[in-house]
Amino acid sequence: MDLLDESVVPEHAREVKREAREFADAHIRPNADEYFDSAEYPWEVLEAGMDAGLVAQDIDEEYGGKGYDLEQILAINEEFYAADAGIALTLMLASFGCEIVEKYGTEEQKDEYLRPVAANEQISGLAVSEPQTGSDMAGMTTTAERTDDGWVLNGEKYWIGNAVEADWLTVYAKTGDGDDRYSNYSMFIVETDAPGYEAEHIPEKIGMRASKQGHIVFDDCEIPEENLVGTEGGGFYVLADFFNHGRVVVGGHGIGLAARAIEETWAFVHDREAFGRDIADFQSTQHILADMRMEFEAARALNWRAAHKVEHGEDAGFWAAATKTKSTETAMHCAERGMQLHGGRSVLEEYPISRVYRDVRIPVIYEGANEIQRNLIYRQGGV
Amino acid sequence: MDLLDESVVPEHAREVKREAREFADAHIRPNADEYFDSAEYPWEVLEAGMDAGLVAQDIDEEYGGKGYDLEQILAINEEFYAADAGIALTLMLASFGCEIVEKYGTEEQKDEYLRPVAANEQISGLAVSEPQTGSDMAGMTTTAERTDDGWVLNGEKYWIGNAVEADWLTVYAKTGDGDDRYSNYSMFIVETDAPGYEAEHIPEKIGMRASKQGHIVFDDCEIPEENLVGTEGGGFYVLADFFNHGRVVVGGHGIGLAARAIEETWAFVHDREAFGRDIADFQSTQHILADMRMEFEAARALNWRAAHKVEHGEDAGFWAAATKTKSTETAMHCAERGMQLHGGRSVLEEYPISRVYRDVRIPVIYEGANEIQRNLIYRQGGV
Amino acid sequence: MDLLDESVVPEHAREVKREAREFADAHIRPNADEYFDSAEYPWEVLEAGMDAGLVAQDIDEEYGGKGYDLEQILAINEEFYAADAGIALTLMLASFGCEIVEKYGTEEQKDEYLRPVAANEQISGLAVSEPQTGSDMAGMTTTAERTDDGWVLNGEKYWIGNAVEADWLTVYAKTGDGDDRYSNYSMFIVETDAPGYEAEHIPEKIGMRASKQGHIVFDDCEIPEENLVGTEGGGFYVLADFFNHGRVVVGGHGIGLAARAIEETWAFVHDREAFGRDIADFQSTQHILADMRMEFEAARALNWRAAHKVEHGEDAGFWAAATKTKSTETAMHCAERGMQLHGGRSVLEEYPISRVYRDVRIPVIYEGANEIQRNLIYRQGGV
Amino acid sequence: MDLLDESVVPEHAREVKREAREFADAHIRPNADEYFDSAEYPWEVLEAGMDAGLVAQDIDEEYGGKGYDLEQILAINEEFYAADAGIALTLMLASFGCEIVEKYGTEEQKDEYLRPVAANEQISGLAVSEPQTGSDMAGMTTTAERTDDGWVLNGEKYWIGNAVEADWLTVYAKTGDGDDRYSNYSMFIVETDAPGYEAEHIPEKIGMRASKQGHIVFDDCEIPEENLVGTEGGGFYVLADFFNHGRVVVGGHGIGLAARAIEETWAFVHDREAFGRDIADFQSTQHILADMRMEFEAARALNWRAAHKVEHGEDAGFWAAATKTKSTETAMHCAERGMQLHGGRSVLEEYPISRVYRDVRIPVIYEGANEIQRNLIYRQGGV
Repeated sequence: MDLLDESVVPEHAREVKREAREFADAHIRPNADEYFDSAEYPWEVLEAGMDAGLVAQDIDEEYGGKGYDLEQILAINEEFYAADAGIALTLMLASFGCEIVEKYGTEEQKDEYLRPVAANEQISGLAVSEPQTGSDMAGMTTTAERTDDGWVLNGEKYWIGNAVEADWLTVYAKTGDGDDRYSNYSMFIVETDAPGYEAEHIPEKIGMRASKQGHIVFDDCEIPEENLVGTEGGGFYVLADFFNHGRVVVGGHGIGLAARAIEETWAFVHDREAFGRDIADFQSTQHILADMRMEFEAARALNWRAAHKVEHGEDAGFWAAATKTKSTETAMHCAERGMQLHGGRSVLEEYPISRVYRDVRIPVIYEGANEIQRNLIYRQGGV
Repeated sequence: MDLLDESVVPEHAREVKREAREFADAHIRPNADEYFDSAEYPWEVLEAGMDAGLVAQDIDEEYGGKGYDLEQILAINEEFYAADAGIALTLMLASFGCEIVEKYGTEEQKDEYLRPVAANEQISGLAVSEPQTGSDMAGMTTTAERTDDGWVLNGEKYWIGNAVEADWLTVYAKTGDGDDRYSNYSMFIVETDAPGYEAEHIPEKIGMRASKQGHIVFDDCEIPEENLVGTEGGGFYVLADFFNHGRVVVGGHGIGLAARAIEETWAFVHDREAFGRDIADFQSTQHILADMRMEFEAARALNWRAAHKVEHGEDAGFWAAATKTKSTETAMHCAERGMQLHGGRSVLEEYPISRVYRDVRIPVIYEGANEIQRNLIYRQGGV
Repeated sequence: MDLLDESVVPEHAREVKREAREFADAHIRPNADEYFDSAEYPWEVLEAGMDAGLVAQDIDEEYGGKGYDLEQILAINEEFYAADAGIALTLMLASFGCEIVEKYGTEEQKDEYLRPVAANEQISGLAVSEPQTGSDMAGMTTTAERTDDGWVLNGEKYWIGNAVEADWLTVYAKTGDGDDRYSNYSMFIVETDAPGYEAEHIPEKIGMRASKQGHIVFDDCEIPEENLVGTEGGGFYVLADFFNHGRVVVGGHGIGLAARAIEETWAFVHDREAFGRDIADFQSTQHILADMRMEFEAARALNWRAAHKVEHGEDAGFWAAATKTKSTETAMHCAERGMQLHGGRSVLEEYPISRVYRDVRIPVIYEGANEIQRNLIYRQGGV
Repeated sequence: MDLLDESVVPEHAREVKREAREFADAHIRPNADEYFDSAEYPWEVLEAGMDAGLVAQDIDEEYGGKGYDLEQILAINEEFYAADAGIALTLMLASFGCEIVEKYGTEEQKDEYLRPVAANEQISGLAVSEPQTGSDMAGMTTTAERTDDGWVLNGEKYWIGNAVEADWLTVYAKTGDGDDRYSNYSMFIVETDAPGYEAEHIPEKIGMRASKQGHIVFDDCEIPEENLVGTEGGGFYVLADFFNHGRVVVGGHGIGLAARAIEETWAFVHDREAFGRDIADFQSTQHILADMRMEFEAARALNWRAAHKVEHGEDAGFWAAATKTKSTETAMHCAERGMQLHGGRSVLEEYPISRVYRDVRIPVIYEGANEIQRNLIYRQGGV
């Protein structure tokens, strides 16, 4: 059986899924080791992905993209993450935040900022997290104050994908101080060559090393008035909506990683030539593989159900949080079990399972750590 | 949110799902305690179920039933098991084994045996398990030997639903001794008033006490030649096919039980009046509830995906085994967590969670213990 | 290997351990089924235990007991609980609360109340929990108000062992309303024939049915002035100290139950005669048994270490909470695994594992639910 | 509380424990990061350890060591592994295999080989594992054949600590082909400059990078007759005995790693300054820490009980396997939980928890993978 078989994928997303697999086999898998080791930015793979029409294509056709919907993006992500999570993240982040501009921005903003990303001439990003605030979106401290000419930003952002590499970012900043803490934030477009914008890479990570995150310092960073996206004070709700989509996709990150863990482990334990016998003859090995398979299918069935729910706006917050948590933790579970079944080889860097074991720690954190997700599941899953 | 919400259910199964819920609310829930305590056979509820047209209606319209398909039967089971597993089992077992006669039997057999069950005049059953053989279908020892007039059966069957109450059973017996151990078995129709058929109830159980299983002794039990169902030696494969359907439905048993565990627990921890405060204010309580919700939705998404797969004959063995295991273990998990969140009240017989805690131990065993399922998942889930 | 082998038990506690095992084999095991089924108070076993000098003997020799220390009591509890948890609880509760009178009471109180219990002429008890307050000792609402003649109590207590059967109880009641909520409680001796004392059994439980708990209503219940135990306002601290001892002993309840689960399961899976083959030949069975054995030994090593720590007053709160939680949860784990390995037989009432499965739910709750213990472990286990 | 507090340690081992901690604080902790990153052999720390009298001192005083017993060695290991597992392993491996020569060797062998190791002039090693045979000691294929002058070895060994760095190794090789597969092996001393001995480092590992393992090829490697250790054919039993000691010590590796995971995590979640708030205020955080603490103490209590049992030869095989498994898996559990509580920082290389997360994967494998241990626990833990 094909772990990422397409029967659960809606028909309209199957063609791009096949393209994504083909690309992943040709460009991501063969380069995964090298970029993980060097921890360099995979510019070449990114460019190949652009050439293949698989980068930044969630942008609407009106602005030069292909208008891929949530299910198409999910399909791509499953395939890319099974090939290599670090490179996959870099490819997916190239248009991060564009969805917000597309949904809430002005026509001028869309023309100016979405077109070059859709055309693969620019890279975007989204800056929300801060060094000290984790995932509490109503507690962020970076401020944007109105001036005569526009806005001036001050504060720090951390863990920002492409903070160094991007051309512009959508930035979440505090614009008010009212009692309703959910109405104090707004979204802005900030070009990375704006005065007062400084970014550097965060320290080296143990996983997904082919992706790059940065630490941004806004020091009286000035941006023009027209760079406000949507209404002032509406930032929190913009983000909540955005994250519902994002979490379904991060669920796909978990699914891809779990698939890779199972794929590697299944091959390893059945490799009679390498080890002179078949580890898979042991019943305990078989039952561990059975558990991995079972949990994987449960997580994947949930993920695609959640994609449909979120795409149609039905209890989106609940389904997004539930599937993000289940899929990313299934990846952890499968990586851990896969390490165990690899025995001593598990800890050699050259075995992909050791990379998966390190990569799986990251999606459980990003787009809201799973503790936060559990708060959301509880609050929105009442019966 | 409605735990057993119908959006995941195919449209053609929603109407019967609503009928099932209505019936369960009116007839099963109010009587659950009483039958659990007395451990008596719920004849009255069974008859009410017959009157409501919800018993034995998987039999084809040609023979007087409604021809409910796998998804419709699954929909009924979720609702019934959420109401009470013991009564639900009794209602569902009233036509157990008929599917085999319908699929493999002669027209004469269908006329004679299916019609009265579809008309709710008779109860059927299926006898496979034996006292010493657990779930190994190729190791059963009850024999059927040809005589001049037909067949004579010898041996014992155990755990047989309605062994005492049924009018006739489909019986799995050994008819050959060839090297291919999978071709030595055949299926027979045995009327329970046949000479040499003796059945008594097995000892009292800790759960699902409103359902009754029996211990059958075949002592030169004679049946006519025409009671062989299907071809001689084909019994093993008949059963394997039958169990693929059955396991998806047993998955639904797990889903129903898990839903009940969550429903009871959610209500209990939010019952501020009863306890003077809201146990649900504790974050650890919330996260446990979140886990229950999340695993429930993953199991349920898998269960309905598996139903579709099995109905369409795609890798049916794998999906049936995977969903049976996941759903019944999710029921165990939710019952256990639910007990914990009920605190001291959990162990009082009057709280439904204490009944669920005892009931969940049974579906993990029947239709093939989960260890057997894991063997199947491994063997059929290769990648 | 003897699961409850004595090498981990300090030498001074080994003799009484042997006596306890002998008594348990002769009087508890053979009667366990009967009392579980009937849910009657095991007066005969209690009297036999008194005759054997194994009941209420923690009371000091000065007042007629044997002065058994914590480790001796723990040794008895392991043995008794392995034989049957319900009967064991009844035997151990016969002097419940006496420790408080012995440690904090006046000479007159000791003479009047401890002697008859040590002489097995009376039964004592301890009343702390209330219907709505669970395990929060600083939130109890039963009050004791001073009158000219003594004290008058009003309120309710729930889950009180021997509330109906005991001759007198030590009762925890609110005597103040100061800002320091930990200094508002006091301990009292209340005779159960006092005016205004009413008690009835709580509803039937699913486990430990040979032990009886009650619901007490104090309706202007008058007691003499001299029945205050210790200083007014000191009740909270008295209890905290008392529970440290109690929790180590409850750890022993978990150890006894876990030992029984393993014993039953080991015997069952190796019973080749009964099942025609040896279930233990399966590697997955072996690994489950190995896990049960391993966790059991870890829990038991911790329990005896904790006994030593608490007996010597070293970080007693931490060790008591840690061992109570680990041992009672190991019992749950072993019962659950044991059920699984018993297959279908697990749910028959006649198999002791089904009794253990129901019994294990109770020690995780009493002496402070394990959620409360985790709060304590955190607070007192800082590094 | 001191996680590695000495109250559980026998008195005679406390002095060396204190020395070990002092050394670890001064020499191991400050250098851990650097050696992990560079993956270079920590010669300087090894030499400092020799100077401090903490390396190779299990060798008897008769041959120049201090004759540290199992409990003393365990005490050192806990401390060293809490400081850094990779460096610790290098320090402990410097005399690996000497125990075998001391117990089974001739006086000549002891004089020639133990003295220089005890004097820290030489490094020893032990070669058992092979590329294709994992932990099955009766299935190793490296052969030693008698020649006129001695023995000639052929075959490969893998995962051999200090294969490149050591001066001599104790080597396990097949010397017979009898039906009793446990009597076909013998032990030999092989100097690493012997003709036909080739060793190179195995590929880079994800953890314990300051320790070095090698791949040895014996290509007609000739050794003198007198290098047979013990009797011909007795190798399997020599190893079984040796591993009982070794596994208790590896349990200590798990304890040290678990202690470090808890220490790092406790500090992190209480670091209010760094994060602007106290993550430890969340109840879910507290309960996770409580679980880590509880399992740690259970594992450690078991480990020291096992040390006593093995030192005194009581069911040594059972206790060694049980404690190796429990302690190393507790380390995994604590590392995983610790990563979770570190949130995003968990994946930055500069945080020690990320090193622990990678290191813990190794002790679950060495000295016999935990699957093998479970086989042993089952076989030797019968009740």
